[in-house]
Amino acid sequence: MESTGRINVGVLGATGAVGQRFVQLLENHPWFTITAVAASDRSMGKPYREACRWLLGTPMPASVRDMIVQPCEPGFDASLVFSALPGDLARSVEKAFAHAGYTVSSNTSTHRMEPDVPLLIPEVNPDHLRLLNVQRRNRGSTGFIVTNPNCSTIALVLALKPLHDAFGLEKVIVTTMQAISGAGYPGVASLDILDNVIPFIGGEERKMETEPLKLLGTFQDDRIAEADFAISAQCNRVHVLDGHLEAVSVELKDRATADDLI
Amino acid sequence: MESTGRINVGVLGATGAVGQRFVQLLENHPWFTITAVAASDRSMGKPYREACRWLLGTPMPASVRDMIVQPCEPGFDASLVFSALPGDLARSVEKAFAHAGYTVSSNTSTHRMEPDVPLLIPEVNPDHLRLLNVQRRNRGSTGFIVTNPNCSTIALVLALKPLHDAFGLEKVIVTTMQAISGAGYPGVASLDILDNVIPFIGGEERKMETEPLKLLGTFQDDRIAEADFAISAQCNRVHVLDGHLEAVSVELKDRATADDLI
Amino acid sequence: MESTGRINVGVLGATGAVGQRFVQLLENHPWFTITAVAASDRSMGKPYREACRWLLGTPMPASVRDMIVQPCEPGFDASLVFSALPGDLARSVEKAFAHAGYTVSSNTSTHRMEPDVPLLIPEVNPDHLRLLNVQRRNRGSTGFIVTNPNCSTIALVLALKPLHDAFGLEKVIVTTMQAISGAGYPGVASLDILDNVIPFIGGEERKMETEPLKLLGTFQDDRIAEADFAISAQCNRVHVLDGHLEAVSVELKDRATADDLI
Amino acid sequence: MESTGRINVGVLGATGAVGQRFVQLLENHPWFTITAVAASDRSMGKPYREACRWLLGTPMPASVRDMIVQPCEPGFDASLVFSALPGDLARSVEKAFAHAGYTVSSNTSTHRMEPDVPLLIPEVNPDHLRLLNVQRRNRGSTGFIVTNPNCSTIALVLALKPLHDAFGLEKVIVTTMQAISGAGYPGVASLDILDNVIPFIGGEERKMETEPLKLLGTFQDDRIAEADFAISAQCNRVHVLDGHLEAVSVELKDRATADDLI
Repeated sequence: MESTGRINVGVLGATGAVGQRFVQLLENHPWFTITAVAASDRSMGKPYREACRWLLGTPMPASVRDMIVQPCEPGFDASLVFSALPGDLARSVEKAFAHAGYTVSSNTSTHRMEPDVPLLIPEVNPDHLRLLNVQRRNRGSTGFIVTNPNCSTIALVLALKPLHDAFGLEKVIVTTMQAISGAGYPGVASLDILDNVIPFIGGEERKMETEPLKLLGTFQDDRIAEADFAISAQCNRVHVLDGHLEAVSVELKDRATADDLI
Repeated sequence: MESTGRINVGVLGATGAVGQRFVQLLENHPWFTITAVAASDRSMGKPYREACRWLLGTPMPASVRDMIVQPCEPGFDASLVFSALPGDLARSVEKAFAHAGYTVSSNTSTHRMEPDVPLLIPEVNPDHLRLLNVQRRNRGSTGFIVTNPNCSTIALVLALKPLHDAFGLEKVIVTTMQAISGAGYPGVASLDILDNVIPFIGGEERKMETEPLKLLGTFQDDRIAEADFAISAQCNRVHVLDGHLEAVSVELKDRATADDLI
Repeated sequence: MESTGRINVGVLGATGAVGQRFVQLLENHPWFTITAVAASDRSMGKPYREACRWLLGTPMPASVRDMIVQPCEPGFDASLVFSALPGDLARSVEKAFAHAGYTVSSNTSTHRMEPDVPLLIPEVNPDHLRLLNVQRRNRGSTGFIVTNPNCSTIALVLALKPLHDAFGLEKVIVTTMQAISGAGYPGVASLDILDNVIPFIGGEERKMETEPLKLLGTFQDDRIAEADFAISAQCNRVHVLDGHLEAVSVELKDRATADDLI
Repeated sequence: MESTGRINVGVLGATGAVGQRFVQLLENHPWFTITAVAASDRSMGKPYREACRWLLGTPMPASVRDMIVQPCEPGFDASLVFSALPGDLARSVEKAFAHAGYTVSSNTSTHRMEPDVPLLIPEVNPDHLRLLNVQRRNRGSTGFIVTNPNCSTIALVLALKPLHDAFGLEKVIVTTMQAISGAGYPGVASLDILDNVIPFIGGEERKMETEPLKLLGTFQDDRIAEADFAISAQCNRVHVLDGHLEAVSVELKDRATADDLI
């Protein structure tokens, strides 16, 4: 398999809102071919088109429509799995796949802050991939887990990175206005959000206040030394379908140099 | 009990969206005093204020806050129960209460179309209460079940009644635009209704096409002879919190007389 | 000019919401090339990109960005003009263009019901173009005006046409739910439509009750003999960006045949 | 007049969205009686019920329905006027009323930052009313102008005041989510705000960054010495009818004391 140079991949949690995005984005991908879709016991054994209430605006890719949904356990004709599992399932399932030799790329928050798991934005901290050798050694496995940050964290850190490199960050204050699609499906009840803003998103604030410190940290002595600044995040759910808006204020360590540049 | 002339009542399904409305509307009621709130096993034994995620704009009435949620079975200090149970539970529970001697006033659709159960709009068909004697006799019970129609049916029939009395109805065509509150809580997912109209509400169409015929029917020979006209209903969920809008067209039997009156 | 076989066209009212749609739809069109954009005095002489607050999701076509907005009077390097003028302006301007020899294709309601002006849905009544000779003869001009129906009428008549042909229409009842984009820009105030349905759209009801009769009429004796059935329209503005939903009920003349076919 | 101890008042700009709020709030007021409603030339001479497209949820007060709309110039049977005029008109009209001896209470931003005009939140800076003597002396008039702040400023300053008094403010960062009603009527176009957040409100940011400094300033030497701290405001329009939500971060001058208290 993969004689064409393409990489066979599986999607864990393929029938949920995030799993569907993986399936959508992997259609016609130049490197990857989906060879397995996996989900909970309820969906197992059914064709994907029946197991999945497709939520996206584009049609369900023809290549997965008739694929039979598999259980979330190793045994895929694939070397890489994308995980869209809910947090409680992700812990054991992702470890099992890594232990069985798979590359696990996880969108779940479960393993993000573990010391030997890279939390990665390719444009920001590609060198954190050096943690993978540490992880393999620690865990005695050939596979491994790599994670991406919370969606609001990604946009924030892409903006913070050049400021942090040039001047050092002292303090960051961020207020978000986040779309309902970020809460999955069925997600936010329409009775809660019509004519309303919901001024707290449980868990989101904590992720935005911790993940950037790891992302902007430094790989040294087989671990990440976290960046040393303070973040305060206020997260609000607003009545839009897609897109997160963030209002960010920063205080710089080297303010004199920054002022000179303006 | 009830020496004050007030009537003690219980609410079945008191923690749900409809049950909360009963609790809200019964506060400071001139006739009724709530003496029991009942709900599913999950809520049982807890104070109402803890068992119930209160959804309404007015505060939870003080008189029920500390009331302990009871199981949905006879044994209330009350002679009348208002039922906001989901349809599957309503069948057996409402019958059990009626059998035990309670007056059961039900908002559920389960028993509405049973031949010996009145479907009642007090302004429209109060004489259908004569079915109660039939029901008691049929079922050998002292209590009984009386039901109210679907919310969209009520508004429709209040408008149809005088036309039907004066000219006779031949045909009715109705298109509804119904608020999300009608679907309960959590009800409609915000991802489904933001920037959208949902052009079908399962079950609603059928109720609007059958219930008016019973409501405008005639009590004779211990049963309701249904009204004899055709109804076509198209039901749409629209993006508003409260209120149902209905566009109605009628064709009259005695059109000549109607034309004379205009 | 037009040696390539392409047709040069102008857009009247090019800076408004409907005019922008013309500009958008004509980009990369296989037959037409925009050579003139015209608008009110306020915009005249400015480049289109400055005169126009572009409202659409796709970018403003490069080919019109630097085009200078012209006055709405003959003198275009074009043989055909698409008119998106407001009704009050359309009357005299469209006549002037037709008189000067231009083909005027108008989206405005002003001339739709004039006896010698075709109201056209190409899939429905192409033979009504025979009115053009009548119009030219009546008005002594080489150019002419042709109109398209109201947006809600088009969808309705496309559905009615095959029923009318096969069985004859006796009565039509239609309830619409129409998007805010149909009201132009700025159009509907957000304070009026948020958490609301607006149950009347001035003028829309009348158009939907008259235009279909002309569209489904028959060309005979140099005029259109209107179709002979009754239409009742209830038009509602709902809280969506794009798209009109219509609930339609029909009564057929030849119901027996229709019943046989089901 | 006013022998009853009540105060006769006029409303300037009485037919607009803010003017209607004044009319609504003054109904059944314990101190004030509306004796004059004034608006632009277009409304003048008409009864208020005809001149005004009433936008509020409560009915138009009976006491003003038949009142004839007057021009915006002195001559009212009143000693106090509330001004809801647009900024461009307010400048000359409010001065004329003050000069003619009236107390002018203005909701407009025009005169807020003038050195001898109090910008007032009664709970925050009642002593700033001492500016009134200065204003009268400066301008040689018996009447005067007093202003209230921008709506978002009021909520912010009520929260800042006790912190400023106790610890001193060093820096304030505020992100607002503001309802569409704040933009008046017709205000925000529904096409702009449905499924959207508008991340800038022209003028609002500047008001929130300057008005608090005057409000928390100190009366000394016949003027207000502004408070000495920095404010950064990001203002967003969100899709709700009423209410402004503000996320505020502060840095205190005397942080040690504040930390001790927590």
